[in-house]
Parts: sequence; C-alpha cells; structure tokens
Amino acid sequence: MEQNMENTVRDIIRKMKASSTMNLDLALRLMEKVEAEAARMGVKAVVAVSDASGRPVAIHCMDGAYIGSYDVALNKTYTSVAFQMSTAKLAELAAPGGSLYGIQHTNEGKIVIFGGGEPLYLDDVLIGAIGVSGGTAEQDTKLGEYGKNILKEVIAWK
Amino acid sequence: MEQNMENTVRDIIRKMKASSTMNLDLALRLMEKVEAEAARMGVKAVVAVSDASGRPVAIHCMDGAYIGSYDVALNKTYTSVAFQMSTAKLAELAAPGGSLYGIQHTNEGKIVIFGGGEPLYLDDVLIGAIGVSGGTAEQDTKLGEYGKNILKEVIAWK
Amino acid sequence: MEQNMENTVRDIIRKMKASSTMNLDLALRLMEKVEAEAARMGVKAVVAVSDASGRPVAIHCMDGAYIGSYDVALNKTYTSVAFQMSTAKLAELAAPGGSLYGIQHTNEGKIVIFGGGEPLYLDDVLIGAIGVSGGTAEQDTKLGEYGKNILKEVIAWK
Amino acid sequence: MEQNMENTVRDIIRKMKASSTMNLDLALRLMEKVEAEAARMGVKAVVAVSDASGRPVAIHCMDGAYIGSYDVALNKTYTSVAFQMSTAKLAELAAPGGSLYGIQHTNEGKIVIFGGGEPLYLDDVLIGAIGVSGGTAEQDTKLGEYGKNILKEVIAWK
Repeated sequence: MEQNMENTVRDIIRKMKASSTMNLDLALRLMEKVEAEAARMGVKAVVAVSDASGRPVAIHCMDGAYIGSYDVALNKTYTSVAFQMSTAKLAELAAPGGSLYGIQHTNEGKIVIFGGGEPLYLDDVLIGAIGVSGGTAEQDTKLGEYGKNILKEVIAWK
Repeated sequence: MEQNMENTVRDIIRKMKASSTMNLDLALRLMEKVEAEAARMGVKAVVAVSDASGRPVAIHCMDGAYIGSYDVALNKTYTSVAFQMSTAKLAELAAPGGSLYGIQHTNEGKIVIFGGGEPLYLDDVLIGAIGVSGGTAEQDTKLGEYGKNILKEVIAWK
Repeated sequence: MEQNMENTVRDIIRKMKASSTMNLDLALRLMEKVEAEAARMGVKAVVAVSDASGRPVAIHCMDGAYIGSYDVALNKTYTSVAFQMSTAKLAELAAPGGSLYGIQHTNEGKIVIFGGGEPLYLDDVLIGAIGVSGGTAEQDTKLGEYGKNILKEVIAWK
Repeated sequence: MEQNMENTVRDIIRKMKASSTMNLDLALRLMEKVEAEAARMGVKAVVAVSDASGRPVAIHCMDGAYIGSYDVALNKTYTSVAFQMSTAKLAELAAPGGSLYGIQHTNEGKIVIFGGGEPLYLDDVLIGAIGVSGGTAEQDTKLGEYGKNILKEVIAWK
C-alpha cells in the first residue's frame, strides 16, 4: 500500500520533471552534438528543437545550409510533436495507399513527410522534438535519430 | 611598387566580388538571351532571375504570357536556390516514392516541382537562379537549362 | 453628322490602341528612363510596371536596392491600377480621418499608401501603372511622377 | 617572395570574405551576449540573427519567453535588413502622419514597426540584423541596440 503510494508520487514527480525539461540550455547542448555529427558526415544542416507543444526553442543554420532547409527543419519538429512519431514513420503512412495519405495537406502546410524529425522522450514522456534538414533524406533521418538517441547522455552530462 | 601591388590586389578583390555577385545588368543580359530563345521556340514566357539568397533581381512577362506564370517563374528561382538543384531534378525526388516526396508542401507554398528553374553557378559558386514559366514543362526546362548554360558566355560578352 | 461618326470611330480606335499598348517592350523602355533618373538622384530603386489589370509586366531591382522594396514597388502598381489614383493621393485619403481610412487593410495586404505609384494613361485611357520604391517617400513620389510624365515621350521615341 | 605576397593576398581576401559575412559562430557569440544582458534585465526574450539577405541564421527562445515573440523577433531581423534601418526608426516613419505610414502592411505581414530590430554593420557593410522580442518595446529596443553596439567587440574576442 505504502509502496503503491510511493510509486504514484515518484511517477508524478517524474512526469513533472520531464515535462519541464525541454529548455534552451538542453536544446543547445543537444543541438551541439547533432551539429558536430552533421559536420563529421559532411552535412550542412539546419537543426531545430521544439518543446512538447511544438513551439520552437532553438534553430541553428549551419554555414552553407540550404535556405529551404530552415522551414523544413522547423516543421519536422512540429510534425514529430503533432503526431508523436518520427517524420520517417509518417512518410510511410502518408504515401499513396498509406493510412494517412493526405495528412501533408493539413495543419497549414506544416506537416513534413520525409525523415529527419524525431519526437524526444524522457522516461516515456514527450518533452519535444528535434528536426534536421540539409542532407539527403537518409542523412537527415540518421541525424534526427542520433539526436533522439543521445538525449539521455546529454542530460546526464550536464 | 607597393602602391602598384595594392592596386592590383584591390582590382582582384573588386573582380572577385563582382564576378561572384548577381546584379541587375547581368540578370538583364541573361534574360534577353532566354527571352529571344523563348520567342524562337514560340513560347510566351515569364522569365525571372534571383540572387544567391533567392531574392528577386528582375522579372519580365513576355507579351501574352499566362498571368499564373509570374508566380511560378519567380518561385522556380526561389526553389532552385533554396535547395541548390534544378526544379526538374527536385521533381524526381518529390514524386511519390521519391526521397523528398512532400517537399512541395514546405516553405510556405514557394516550392515548385516541375522543370524550368536552374541554379546559376560561376566557378562552382552559387550566384543565383533563373526561372522560366509559360510553355510546357519540357519547354520551360529547356529554356531554364539554356539560361544556365549560356551564363558564362553572357558574362564574357560584357 | 459624318463628322460625328468619324469622331466616334476615331475614339474607338484610339481606345483600342491605347488598351493594347502596355507591353514588355514599352515597360522596359519606360523603366530604363526611370532607372536612369533614379541613378541621377542617387536612389537605388525597385521599379515595376503593371498592365491595366494590375498584372505585373516587369520588375527590376537596381543593385543595392532594399529587399523590402520589391513588394512595395510591385504593390504600388497594383494599388495605382486598383483605385486609378496615385499612391500619394491615396495616402491622403487613407490617413486617419480621411475618407478611405482603413483601405490599406483590404485587398490581401496589397494596398500601399505612400507615394511612388502612378497610374499610366494614354489619351485618358488607363494602360497600366508604374511603382517605384527605394528612396524616401518624397523621392519615390518624384520618380513615379517622372515615369508618368515621360510616358508619351517614350512611346514617341520608339 | 612572390609566393609570400600571394599568401598575404589570399589571407586578406579570406579575412575580407569572413569578416563581411554573418555565420553561425558569430551569430551565436553575439546572441550569448544579448541573452546574458536580457537575463540581467529580467527579460525572457526571443533573440534572432539573420544574414544580409534577411535569411535566419539562429533563433533562441529563452525559457519562459512568449510564444508570440518568436515570430516578432524573427521578423524584426527581416524588417531591419529589408529597409536597412532599426525597427525603432521605422516605427517613427510608419506612424500616422509619417512618410511611411502603412509600410507595415507590405511584405506579406513581415514588417515589424516597434523597437528591437537592428541592422548589423561591419565597416559600413550590412552583414545581417538582430531581432529581440519579449520585453517592453523599450527593453527590446535597448537589447537590440546592445547587440548592434557590441558586435565589433564580439568579433574581436574571437
């Protein structure tokens, strides 16, 4: 019984912490890692992080990045939060014949349906999303996943 | 002697700056060629040139051109700069099954995914883009490529 | 009686001629004059000409012109045609207390209410408009008026 | 000796190019200063930097900043570049009775006419703009000016 209550309290605290976790400092430390990885891969990327409401926290355009990537990277974060799935996953569902075919015409043109956007979770709670644009769809997807996977380390490193 | 060197350096710098920059004079001389070619082909085109940031430099609507071609020609220049590839190439990547399927819904509706837009390079440096609209996709593509290919001659002819 | 008929015919022909007069060639020759005048005044202007339907015919951005002037110059032509008056005149009517106060919120943001836009008439028939932006409102107004006034000469010089 | 001269010339050119260009590194170092100043003033700001063409380079939303400030900060950079003046200065000209009254309705809603946007110059060459939004118009103006004034030091500190 007591154990039960303790678990509930822990759970609430965990979620509270998590939900208040995306902030400018965390976003910048995560983006630094992703930008370094992009540089290693030779990709001039736009990297964006949004919070759990899909609101932008930070956007960086690496030198020489495509002008058109700004909109794409930012909207990859929106898309990832809006449907709580990666944009690579949404790409499959939004293809002709897919169960979400046509979703790209909703939400005022802010839905991106190719890889590079990833929702960010902390202990199963959505805290935001990362969006990467500038390389091939494959490279963007890889960089987005890199960001998603390295999040825990980035938080621990603080 | 030193003065001489300084002048030489200044001259080199001046030429570098000039040669790596789209300006109204260069745009108009390039457009004149493309418009003449369009006339030979019997196409009433809108021809546009933008700079390396996708900002318009000059737009001409040939007599009898479609009203709707204005927006298309201008956005072909934006698209070509924004993703540094021809709109014909982007058309392939944006087709269903392509790696960038859906890109046409980004950038606030300014992405055009059929031929006629070409990035303009000088010595491998992007200096702007040309966009042609008014004929068939094939004709527009041909005219855009004509503009891209004749750029060097136009600069030399000055 | 015969004289009467002759006058009617002349009038019809005059109007037919006039209404078909704005074309790319005329627009470019007019713009050349206005751009030369702008250069003399030290103004780096965007100069635009639209036809009698307010559709763009040609736009030139002089080197170093403000990026923001593109939209303004083009919309000055739209405004001048849309209400068949100069944007300087409309500015007076659209000021707080003026009879058209609020007009700037109509027409999807395309109404400009400061000088530099002038409707172009040929024998009292509207054939288009010129829009100039890049200097002070006073300079733009002067350049727009210069374009309006020199139109007849430009046609004669052909 | 000749080789030496060539190297010197190359070095000068490299520095000229670097120093006359806004890049991510410079933008971030400038923003760090402005964000620190905002924190000292107790303002939760969105801080944005764009390049000389008004294309975004980096945007940071300080924790607790207004959601609505994102758009405002970014468009302050666009406005400052588009008309090459501070948004505080434009505010005066755009007021009823001012020579640019109505300018805020141009450029597709991207013109901001209250303080916080400043064009950034290096040796009289426009290299971009900073936009700050989140405090009062007075605070935003102060922070934008702080960014403009500290630019030279930030470059020197590198």
